Amino acid sequence: MCELMGMSANVPTDVCFSFTGLMQRGGRTGPHKDGWGIAFYEGRGLSSFHDPNPSVNSKIAQLVKDYPIKSHVVISHIRQANVGDICLENTHPFSRELWGQMWTYAHNGQLDQSVFELPLTHYRPIGTTDSEYAFCWLLGEIREAFPERPDSYDELIGFVKTRSDQLRELGVFNMLLTDSCYLMAYCSTKLHWITRKAPFGQASLSDVEVVVDFCEKTTPTDVVTMIATAPLTDNEVWNKLEIGEMIVFRNGLVISQQR
Amino acid sequence: MCELMGMSANVPTDVCFSFTGLMQRGGRTGPHKDGWGIAFYEGRGLSSFHDPNPSVNSKIAQLVKDYPIKSHVVISHIRQANVGDICLENTHPFSRELWGQMWTYAHNGQLDQSVFELPLTHYRPIGTTDSEYAFCWLLGEIREAFPERPDSYDELIGFVKTRSDQLRELGVFNMLLTDSCYLMAYCSTKLHWITRKAPFGQASLSDVEVVVDFCEKTTPTDVVTMIATAPLTDNEVWNKLEIGEMIVFRNGLVISQQR
Repeated sequence: MCELMGMSANVPTDVCFSFTGLMQRGGRTGPHKDGWGIAFYEGRGLSSFHDPNPSVNSKIAQLVKDYPIKSHVVISHIRQANVGDICLENTHPFSRELWGQMWTYAHNGQLDQSVFELPLTHYRPIGTTDSEYAFCWLLGEIREAFPERPDSYDELIGFVKTRSDQLRELGVFNMLLTDSCYLMAYCSTKLHWITRKAPFGQASLSDVEVVVDFCEKTTPTDVVTMIATAPLTDNEVWNKLEIGEMIVFRNGLVISQQR
Repeated sequence: MCELMGMSANVPTDVCFSFTGLMQRGGRTGPHKDGWGIAFYEGRGLSSFHDPNPSVNSKIAQLVKDYPIKSHVVISHIRQANVGDICLENTHPFSRELWGQMWTYAHNGQLDQSVFELPLTHYRPIGTTDSEYAFCWLLGEIREAFPERPDSYDELIGFVKTRSDQLRELGVFNMLLTDSCYLMAYCSTKLHWITRKAPFGQASLSDVEVVVDFCEKTTPTDVVTMIATAPLTDNEVWNKLEIGEMIVFRNGLVISQQR
């Protein structure tokens, strides 16, 4: 299995604090030592880092932890391999372009071998994971159903949920997906989220002794939502998604929640 | 204008030495301060770094310079903006998937406004540069002509050359393109390359006082080709490509050269 982390915010925000907690799970407090990756969006632009080495020892992870990259949307993943070798091309998150937007996806779980029978149209996997194959299928389905970007995402979100339900029938399918603006999360077994806004308080990481006072780092209008497989802090109340639930964030706020 | 750098090698090789020279041109010895990017292939996998800040001051560039990422194929670019704002989505190199391979491209030059009239099929730009638009057109043309990966690349290489000739009619089109295995370079005005193999010697950078002894870093069977807008070293003889020439490398060796 693996661990997921995502962020949606209404102002460019760094994830140094949360990533400091997550990277511990890549070989120290957790067994997810088979690589890690993170995708940051600045506007429409994507900056991503992928490393097949354990995050806890990774020089690139050290940079991501220490260097505040400010972003509206982030997706990160640390991997414990099941299907597919430990190598760069099997390292999440995965990205493909649709409608002139770079979409990014990461998956936690394992799918039945029959996932590889789903028909691919526009996108093909580079690596050999069930996760990337499912992404190529899902994005191809979206592209077939919506050849052009819809003005409203309401119908699209429902569509992604039905396709995610279909993938969940093939195994465990916890998933984060973004088009650079919307952050969609689908829960098959385990996903937690929290929205931080004024009045901001202190937060302390579960995986390593680090405390942050968000008051010092924010303005009163900031809204920042974090989503992760397991809560990253031990002094805040995180919301748990239900099985089969999909939640969508934009600018840090929930804009859709469907069960 | 911008500067290009590429590498093709028969063993996983880092580009720390060459990148140390190139990054100086991003704000110190050269005016290319409008961002930079680099793409490393490990097998089929792609690891890339993009930063809209000047490379000479960039913390991410510092990491790339100091941390030896071993790769068979590398494409790097430092930007001096002409068309398109200075922002992440306009930062080269650009990547898209075709045939289950991640293709990467970087461009030096400026194309006539009419490039934006070329018909796009499968790929659309995220940003607003003429460069990325030309890439989306070029890769779409390849996909139309070769819906499946050909067994031999001979015909494909000729096809890329004719389309590159067509782009050169619209302005300056120096270009590096890779499918993760082949490194293709097209020269419109200025590109230089050098193949290093045994017996290896010393090389000294043109842009900063750094000397490397490749004997200490290589084995006798290593073959490493570097290609760059202007030679990166001042004590070696670089080959100059002619106008309209295309050269293709695989595992560090020239496999095609067409004028």
